Amino acid sequence: MKSAEVTTDKTPHVIRGIQNLEVKEWQILNVLTWARPSWRLHLGHYVWALKNWKLMQENPSVKCSFLIADYQVLWDHLGETQKMRNSVIDMVIDWMSVWLDPNKSNFVVQSYVPEFAELFNYLTMFVSYTTAVNNPTLKEEMKKIEDRESSNPISLGFINYPVSQVADIMLPLTHIVPVWEDQIPHIELARKIIKKVNTMYNTEFPLPKALISDMSRLVWIDWTDKMSKSLWNTIYLTATYEEIKSQVNKMYTDPNKTSIDSKWNIDKHVVFLYLDIFYEDKKHLEELKKRYIEWWENSVWDWEIKKLLIEALEKFIAPIRERRKYYENHMDIVVDAIEKWSENLRKDWQKMLLQLRKAMGLLNYGRE
Amino acid sequence: MKSAEVTTDKTPHVIRGIQNLEVKEWQILNVLTWARPSWRLHLGHYVWALKNWKLMQENPSVKCSFLIADYQVLWDHLGETQKMRNSVIDMVIDWMSVWLDPNKSNFVVQSYVPEFAELFNYLTMFVSYTTAVNNPTLKEEMKKIEDRESSNPISLGFINYPVSQVADIMLPLTHIVPVWEDQIPHIELARKIIKKVNTMYNTEFPLPKALISDMSRLVWIDWTDKMSKSLWNTIYLTATYEEIKSQVNKMYTDPNKTSIDSKWNIDKHVVFLYLDIFYEDKKHLEELKKRYIEWWENSVWDWEIKKLLIEALEKFIAPIRERRKYYENHMDIVVDAIEKWSENLRKDWQKMLLQLRKAMGLLNYGRE
Repeated sequence: MKSAEVTTDKTPHVIRGIQNLEVKEWQILNVLTWARPSWRLHLGHYVWALKNWKLMQENPSVKCSFLIADYQVLWDHLGETQKMRNSVIDMVIDWMSVWLDPNKSNFVVQSYVPEFAELFNYLTMFVSYTTAVNNPTLKEEMKKIEDRESSNPISLGFINYPVSQVADIMLPLTHIVPVWEDQIPHIELARKIIKKVNTMYNTEFPLPKALISDMSRLVWIDWTDKMSKSLWNTIYLTATYEEIKSQVNKMYTDPNKTSIDSKWNIDKHVVFLYLDIFYEDKKHLEELKKRYIEWWENSVWDWEIKKLLIEALEKFIAPIRERRKYYENHMDIVVDAIEKWSENLRKDWQKMLLQLRKAMGLLNYGRE
Repeated sequence: MKSAEVTTDKTPHVIRGIQNLEVKEWQILNVLTWARPSWRLHLGHYVWALKNWKLMQENPSVKCSFLIADYQVLWDHLGETQKMRNSVIDMVIDWMSVWLDPNKSNFVVQSYVPEFAELFNYLTMFVSYTTAVNNPTLKEEMKKIEDRESSNPISLGFINYPVSQVADIMLPLTHIVPVWEDQIPHIELARKIIKKVNTMYNTEFPLPKALISDMSRLVWIDWTDKMSKSLWNTIYLTATYEEIKSQVNKMYTDPNKTSIDSKWNIDKHVVFLYLDIFYEDKKHLEELKKRYIEWWENSVWDWEIKKLLIEALEKFIAPIRERRKYYENHMDIVVDAIEKWSENLRKDWQKMLLQLRKAMGLLNYGRE
């Protein structure tokens, strides 16, 4: 249960950039990720998260647990569990389509592991009410929910959720949690609670560190900062060639590239931003950018680079689509993926909880 | 899972007096009680609670679950679990000494049944944060804790506890919960949450009713309204003859019975109040009361009725003490009592939870 040594910056519990995650050969680094099964996955999810998950999965010194956080849907969508059922399966198919592999990583459904709830229940005793409700991320999210029209009132489950996440982290003895900048307070809460447990009961649960991606978020195709309600401004991992084409053609480019005199730039040029990620011939891309900005007789036009991006995305998505089709026709493999771990993993985690209860003195009353 | 029909007064979820608990022959009434393993049991516990529990236990149409609520100690005594370990065993010995019987009733240790925590976790989604923290009993208790000197800050676990109690009630499909008047809001919360579950998911969990004892609380021997910190003002179920004698001799009587002229009364006469309960010859007792109040040549004096009470209490406590000694020498029976139920009971309750999860749609993702 020793905490892993990893390269860090000034705040020792925050690691910026996956390249700074140093894994020593003799140790296994446990990584935990969450995903709420409420959205279909899109290219943004891939760039922000899945790509890194895959990288970590392929590192033999890392053990990933990908948590399908269905409790987190219940907090304010109690009535929509039937919809969520499909989302769970869709998400797992998406994962497997981008080469996340249940033979290498743990695919974990939160509600399949009651031990998460049991540990959560204990952890609520280790944190003061004031600390719990003053979590800045929680407060921000509460405000968002309250501002939403016709929303349900905030549930007690929602107030508990940061502590519930600490249980998610602690149960698999997690060392590393890939999060966004604004989720760092959750990791700090986890460290605070786990430190208290370790101090009070002489246990050695690892103190988790946050892994912050140094990839900037992939912009939406309309260069807005949030997903549109009708979801038209993204490209799903399931997109057909026609959908890719249609979405790329709608992409925000440089509105000024209309006359010879105007100054052009590609800072907010969505097509180039996507090409940066998905077009493999970087040398050619640099040349295109140069030609695009500098006006001379062989400049390139939006339709040309859009065509290039359509081909690049099709090259990227086609095999994913292919794999998706395969899994859709082999649902038994998908269902196995979320069920197969349960036997062994739960046994381990039950043992871990028994150890904790033993350390706390909550076991075998009347026996020495 | 049908709710039981019982005789009630104006508030249909509150039954006053165990004699109003009507049990129809064709049904089993599930009763749940709590006890926090933090105090040694005394005569007050017997009169207020244990006596009724025993009555219900002996009714073949009633199934009692006596819950040893160890979670409830953790809320603000995390560091005292070693002390609590002894309390659990002491309490179970006390129970068995007053003829509570693990062969007739379920002796349940809360932390031995992780299903309580799992159900609690779900139920936090069914109650709004506002409702949870505005529970009047909770608010009162919070105030008491805050007023206490050098107390720990209120934990998140404490805020959750009324909902945790709802899980305690719901899991054993409880119909009847013996509580104090001030705990009725908890039963109302339970009904509210269970109604919501039943409505949303078409389940038939029984709506629990509160059973209020019509016995008044047994007064402390100094006629104060709370237990003294040094605990000298009570008589334990484990008291020796010497301890009984010493405590009865300290009992508050009528301070005015010093001269012939003063008016005497027995309204606050602790010895008579105890005799009312523990002295079997009621006719003789009435005669004594008359003689005590009315001054004539054959009046009785405090030392005489105290002697009577000492004998009555000794007669009551001696067999309990005897049984206690037996169980202390046969700890295996005591430990069995809290472990033996676990196999069968947990299996039932796991099934029950699976049914709930199925109704909620939280099971077998990807399978029909």
